[in-house]
Amino acid sequence: MTESVYSSYPPALDSAQKEFLVKTIKDWATQNGLVVRPSPTFVAKENDPQGVLATNAPVTLFPSLFPKACFEEARALQTVYNQLYAAITCDEDWIGKIMEDLIDVDDFISNLWKVHLAVKEEGYTQNLSLGLYRSDYMAHTPSDASSPSLKQVEFNTISSSFGGLSSLVTSLHTELLNSPPGHPIAYPSHPLLDNNQPPENPAVETLAAGLAAAHVAYGPSKSTPALPTCILFLVQENERNIFDQLALSRELTKAHKIPVFRVLSSEILDHTFIHDSNPSRPLIYQPPHSSGTQFEVTTAYLRCFYAPTDYKSERDWQARTHLERSAAIKCPTVLNQLAGCKVVQQVLAEQEGPDHLAKFLSGTDDATISRVRATFAPQYDLSSTGRGQKLALNLETAMNHVLKPQREGGGNNVYKDAIPEFLRSIPETEWKRWILMELIHPPAEAKNVALRSDGEVLSGHVIGELGVYGTILWDQANGNIVQNEQGGWLMRTKARDVNEGGVATGFSSLDSIVLY
Amino acid sequence: MTESVYSSYPPALDSAQKEFLVKTIKDWATQNGLVVRPSPTFVAKENDPQGVLATNAPVTLFPSLFPKACFEEARALQTVYNQLYAAITCDEDWIGKIMEDLIDVDDFISNLWKVHLAVKEEGYTQNLSLGLYRSDYMAHTPSDASSPSLKQVEFNTISSSFGGLSSLVTSLHTELLNSPPGHPIAYPSHPLLDNNQPPENPAVETLAAGLAAAHVAYGPSKSTPALPTCILFLVQENERNIFDQLALSRELTKAHKIPVFRVLSSEILDHTFIHDSNPSRPLIYQPPHSSGTQFEVTTAYLRCFYAPTDYKSERDWQARTHLERSAAIKCPTVLNQLAGCKVVQQVLAEQEGPDHLAKFLSGTDDATISRVRATFAPQYDLSSTGRGQKLALNLETAMNHVLKPQREGGGNNVYKDAIPEFLRSIPETEWKRWILMELIHPPAEAKNVALRSDGEVLSGHVIGELGVYGTILWDQANGNIVQNEQGGWLMRTKARDVNEGGVATGFSSLDSIVLY
Repeated sequence: MTESVYSSYPPALDSAQKEFLVKTIKDWATQNGLVVRPSPTFVAKENDPQGVLATNAPVTLFPSLFPKACFEEARALQTVYNQLYAAITCDEDWIGKIMEDLIDVDDFISNLWKVHLAVKEEGYTQNLSLGLYRSDYMAHTPSDASSPSLKQVEFNTISSSFGGLSSLVTSLHTELLNSPPGHPIAYPSHPLLDNNQPPENPAVETLAAGLAAAHVAYGPSKSTPALPTCILFLVQENERNIFDQLALSRELTKAHKIPVFRVLSSEILDHTFIHDSNPSRPLIYQPPHSSGTQFEVTTAYLRCFYAPTDYKSERDWQARTHLERSAAIKCPTVLNQLAGCKVVQQVLAEQEGPDHLAKFLSGTDDATISRVRATFAPQYDLSSTGRGQKLALNLETAMNHVLKPQREGGGNNVYKDAIPEFLRSIPETEWKRWILMELIHPPAEAKNVALRSDGEVLSGHVIGELGVYGTILWDQANGNIVQNEQGGWLMRTKARDVNEGGVATGFSSLDSIVLY
Repeated sequence: MTESVYSSYPPALDSAQKEFLVKTIKDWATQNGLVVRPSPTFVAKENDPQGVLATNAPVTLFPSLFPKACFEEARALQTVYNQLYAAITCDEDWIGKIMEDLIDVDDFISNLWKVHLAVKEEGYTQNLSLGLYRSDYMAHTPSDASSPSLKQVEFNTISSSFGGLSSLVTSLHTELLNSPPGHPIAYPSHPLLDNNQPPENPAVETLAAGLAAAHVAYGPSKSTPALPTCILFLVQENERNIFDQLALSRELTKAHKIPVFRVLSSEILDHTFIHDSNPSRPLIYQPPHSSGTQFEVTTAYLRCFYAPTDYKSERDWQARTHLERSAAIKCPTVLNQLAGCKVVQQVLAEQEGPDHLAKFLSGTDDATISRVRATFAPQYDLSSTGRGQKLALNLETAMNHVLKPQREGGGNNVYKDAIPEFLRSIPETEWKRWILMELIHPPAEAKNVALRSDGEVLSGHVIGELGVYGTILWDQANGNIVQNEQGGWLMRTKARDVNEGGVATGFSSLDSIVLY
């Protein structure tokens, strides 16, 4: 039943229709800021020495199909998930225990943990903690199931991206569905497109409102004399996805009238200061372009420092510690970042032993907890005592699994029959850096057409991942929740071969959805 | 007095301020569609075979200064100018007489005139005519004058461009002046910037409203059975300035809910049809991407066919005739395009002989006519009987003049001491293709800094040209005016050396203004 919905979608395009859609989307994307800086493989540095060129973000020509029940469930559970990860972050001992094993084998985790310990020893001066989250799912559609179910792929607690561009893709597809006004003909007619529209996508408003809530909750300046306040976006050098971030700062500036500045992670220690004479440790930002001016940072929003490659030297760790010990509300704190490790997801999903999920959601009704639990795919550690090792090393059972690094952030997964071989090729002491997850089966017949950033158009079978955004502001000292919201979503669509360790001829695109 | 205002503006930038402004403007432009497709000299075709790359439009870092009285006068006179050019267009005999001399020496004018004659012979089926105009001025500031005066450079009756991007530059400079909210520090403090803002710039709204008025005035479909109606944008191939045009079509679609399609001038005859069985000759558009669908074109908006290079073969002239004989309202008609030739401007400015200006503005009070006349720079034909020849051939008087081709569209001007030499190098029979215009003296001390499309930043003395947009819809049969509006403006700023036939290291940028 479900498969037949996908098998006839999207409608076929003749060459004139394809040319029209590609041209229209290409121009629309550039006109409306649905853009990225081109990759160095597309535009070499010497061909654009000043870095002025931009190109359309990779986008699908059609919105993808997504089961309505799964979409509604993902939205309904987002504030519960927000609360869950806030509660985990508040339980430092629990996180410490989970991380214990990893600290030996993983410098990155170990260094993050050290940042936390150092600040803890000195004493945190800011109890408020802000999370801008994205929970990623697939519509699990195994061939033997009567209807698809929602399964979580991962939960992002740091630098959750694409909210800005995702809203724009939704606008793009919505406009195409209604273009021209009164007589829509941009898409060929199709029963799933006629009189159907993507759901609203207030990702930008939601994420900006989360940041604004933290800004307001920070309260008045802690400096003497009082300084004007601002939000800082801490960003990577040569960020290609800058326009995604600028969509949020534009909203903060326009709708909330809050000053926002961008600071490169490598320049944090050059332009921000903490005066140790002030025990509150307000974080002072001194804009290099206005040297006589100072702002006090209410909220430090990290769009960097999420991956080991972001820490090139000891100075980067110093910068992270500097932010962490300041009075600025961190989005996220080190503890909240650690809570997003895949190992946490795996421990929550464990079917034996203590019920961590129920503990962290102690104020929540059992039915809701069950619904959250139903989104977990079975996953295992690779300790000698559990089931994971057996499932991973046996070729037959490995075929239904994926091996993921326990840290957040994709790209290094090992799939199916490659798992046993891979594990045997590394020392057994390294195994604890991995978790084994049962494969989620997205609809096998799903197809789409994508316009890449270099203008190539590719079509084929795809795998779609739905992310739902949520924001939560809480008091880390007592667990009190100040604000907990959900809103906005992201559809990311990849060529199927890419996700299975395949060839680079594929694509990964921003997408939107129509529900069925 | 005036000069001293310019001499201290814009404020100096240290390297950090400049870096901040350039980076901010570069990103803002790309995020907000203030972009162009890069020139082939910047990005070679083989480096972007699919044509997806875009870059910031060339823009100034600061708004330029402009005398408030001149700006207000330009706005106040725009509807009078609209009316003037509509009246000229209605006087076919007058235009014919003016063109008479040129038809012999100028194939382009001659061919345009033939299109008109052919359609006239068959009989026009559409009396409504739409003008989207831009009147271009400088603030004339000769060293001996106590205050600047407004002098017209040219009046554009076809493809008046940059309304879309100009509004965006105004938004950019306005945002910078107020950034961040509450504590503006994007620009260094300067008495002419503090608490000063560019005037509102509703160019997009005004131009789109003009097109929408024509669309509505066209009335119901003239086809049987009735067809849905649309506006057609007729455009050039490889248009680098496409995003300027898309700003208008977006406004038409979003604010007016009018279908808009783009058709290449080379494909007009492939995708539009006139069924000769219908004496009203409605123009039918058949979208190639939806072959079963037809729209009736209410308004043909030309962003092509303004220059000889737009007519590559006889087929292009057929396409122009095809549009002209259709029932679509033309923006502009051939006659209206011809009314925009520089020779018309020169004849209006003649100080001897019949008072053409007063004749065309017969319903207008004398004071207003005088104000229009005051915007004319002295200009002359080069006939043997007039003053023009003498002024042009004498080196001393030539120094205060510029020689311009009598057709619209710049780029081929001859300046000052080069004039006598140039005239003597061409046959005297060719002289009638040129008009001589007294030089307008923009403020000599005006300076600005520009970010080019390739990211280079240049600063120096500049010449600014202010354009004011107007729209008029009238009945060509009886001269009745249906709608006459002004709104929106353009500041274009060029490096001074460029305008004086100088080197290509200069720049020509989109700009905005602050009034003084």
